[in-house]
Amino acid sequence: MAETTAIRTVDGAAARVRAPAATITDAASWTCPAPLRDHRTVVMGHGGGGQLSAELVRHLFAPAYGNDVLAQLGDSATVTLGGTRLAFSTDSYVVRPLFFPGGSIGDLAVNGTVNDLAMAGATAAFLSCAFILEEGVELATVGRVAASLGAAARAAGVVVATGDTKVVDTGHGDGVFINTAGIGLVRDGVDIRPERAAPGDVVIVSGPLGEHGVAVLSVREGLEFGGEVRSDTAPLGSLVQAMLDVCPDVHALRDPTRGGLATSLNEIASAAGVGISLQERSLPVPDAVAGACAFLGLDPLYVANEGKLVAFVPPARADAVLAAMRAHPLGAGAVAIGTCVAEHPGTVVARTGLGGTRVVDVPVGEQLPRIC
Amino acid sequence: MAETTAIRTVDGAAARVRAPAATITDAASWTCPAPLRDHRTVVMGHGGGGQLSAELVRHLFAPAYGNDVLAQLGDSATVTLGGTRLAFSTDSYVVRPLFFPGGSIGDLAVNGTVNDLAMAGATAAFLSCAFILEEGVELATVGRVAASLGAAARAAGVVVATGDTKVVDTGHGDGVFINTAGIGLVRDGVDIRPERAAPGDVVIVSGPLGEHGVAVLSVREGLEFGGEVRSDTAPLGSLVQAMLDVCPDVHALRDPTRGGLATSLNEIASAAGVGISLQERSLPVPDAVAGACAFLGLDPLYVANEGKLVAFVPPARADAVLAAMRAHPLGAGAVAIGTCVAEHPGTVVARTGLGGTRVVDVPVGEQLPRIC
Repeated sequence: MAETTAIRTVDGAAARVRAPAATITDAASWTCPAPLRDHRTVVMGHGGGGQLSAELVRHLFAPAYGNDVLAQLGDSATVTLGGTRLAFSTDSYVVRPLFFPGGSIGDLAVNGTVNDLAMAGATAAFLSCAFILEEGVELATVGRVAASLGAAARAAGVVVATGDTKVVDTGHGDGVFINTAGIGLVRDGVDIRPERAAPGDVVIVSGPLGEHGVAVLSVREGLEFGGEVRSDTAPLGSLVQAMLDVCPDVHALRDPTRGGLATSLNEIASAAGVGISLQERSLPVPDAVAGACAFLGLDPLYVANEGKLVAFVPPARADAVLAAMRAHPLGAGAVAIGTCVAEHPGTVVARTGLGGTRVVDVPVGEQLPRIC
Repeated sequence: MAETTAIRTVDGAAARVRAPAATITDAASWTCPAPLRDHRTVVMGHGGGGQLSAELVRHLFAPAYGNDVLAQLGDSATVTLGGTRLAFSTDSYVVRPLFFPGGSIGDLAVNGTVNDLAMAGATAAFLSCAFILEEGVELATVGRVAASLGAAARAAGVVVATGDTKVVDTGHGDGVFINTAGIGLVRDGVDIRPERAAPGDVVIVSGPLGEHGVAVLSVREGLEFGGEVRSDTAPLGSLVQAMLDVCPDVHALRDPTRGGLATSLNEIASAAGVGISLQERSLPVPDAVAGACAFLGLDPLYVANEGKLVAFVPPARADAVLAAMRAHPLGAGAVAIGTCVAEHPGTVVARTGLGGTRVVDVPVGEQLPRIC
């Protein structure tokens, strides 16, 4: 998930002349804002997609970049350039190991960015692709990663238009890091963003949860269930277009990667000022994922997915959207998992099988480092 | 300098359906192409912007991505999306140290990508900005880098629209790596690309050479001349627009970063199938740079610049372009350094002060690792 700092529907020319509201201009005299003072140095959780990540964006990056809209966490930015409405997004990929059941860092680098664009209702057209290689990594490894990236791009229908390669000395990198940025056309008439989630919306997920995180972790730890669970990495552009065909007014979409479904739902609840009520037993957690999570002490709601989305859909169109999703290979397991409510704004509550409720909170750091 | 693989003026929709000419589809069975077999593993030179970098793009990345145009090394890709002609470019920044006389990795991350877009005649509008942080780096360092990046973006008139942050464990990164990708509108009526350099063209550089590389190396090595030479990092968008105001038919532009002026000239000579004849004594090398290079055993023609461009201009408009450049603060030191010739295609020849000639070749690897 890209962390978007502000800016929607800003024309390039207009953006270039407007003054930022509040900026940091003197790099030499930077002082740490109070909300970040728990840590003097960067910890793994700052990259985990949870609360620490959000605070870093809000209190460090956003003020530095001086955008005049409060920092937001989104999957991509929507911008207007030369009269064309574009989605623009970036992600770096530092997953370890580079190859895992169901995919590789090359697949993630394509699908992750394609999916961020899809979450704005955009069809990815072009990708940039930049490698940071560590001196000493085998050329065959780089070749295999590039081949998997190329195959994923063709499968997703996106063209790698520009690239870059840097090499860092041994011990200052980790084999292969990849960054991709993507641009895509936003479909006419759609306005998909977290703030549009509204009480009454049906919350739909496109299929089984937690597969990517469990697949990576299992091979990393050499665990037995590694063979059973494969990463779900997949490009979601055509699934989103199929949904928009039957409901152009989808309110919000997100792909629950780092931080899992729980984090995505909390971000939307918070951005829209709504509550979310989940039916816990509706959550599609495969037995193998549930077993692995129990063994590893993880909650599947916080485990990364790389080929799933969560949608907030007006109730009148929910059945049509569900049917369209189930007719698509990447949405065959789509289910409604809950509703958006006016109560407990900003909070996600799950109704348990026993009739009780529990708050589904945002993780502070991350339970699975370097998962994407 | 971004390494562009193929694709110009491709409509998003068209690009998505056309089949690649030659592709690698089976990541597991990748075999090393013959031209890459001198190295089993990645060496620093693969990221140096010279011959090894070019071979990696041509023989590893381009076949993997399956674009149907031969791999080209360019500063940015020009693509058409929704009827709008865009330049799109990316670079990662791994410079060491993060701060140096005249700038920081944050300045480079903005200006480097803005300049790649400018080399296609485009005005940068939006940047993505992705950080890969090493666990343990001080938050104050990240804050200062972000502040310098934000200030550089404002100075360049470009908006940071989307971002990402990843953290890697200690010993698997190097403080701060940054990737930026940029999109910009290509000015109507311009067609600027290396292939358009033509015999008769006047070759112009915008000012003194070698300052960035010497500034970084001096502080890295703790050398005395560090105080004298400052990085020239600067955004060249407005300089290019001033040039295009007087000559919309500029043939080729390049910013001579990694690999220096020598590499840029060789790439253009090779792409256009022309020779380039330089007057060695016209080359603007400041005394402090010349002195530092002599001391360090470097050739200033191969040292990176981060705020300079080289232009190939039709002879009839060369004086007008030179005058427009000299009237701009970033082109005050612009000079003609040679001409494009029909002889010795693909080769750059310098006429020395004593009346002799020497071939200005492409470096194999890099003389200055991690300069940007």
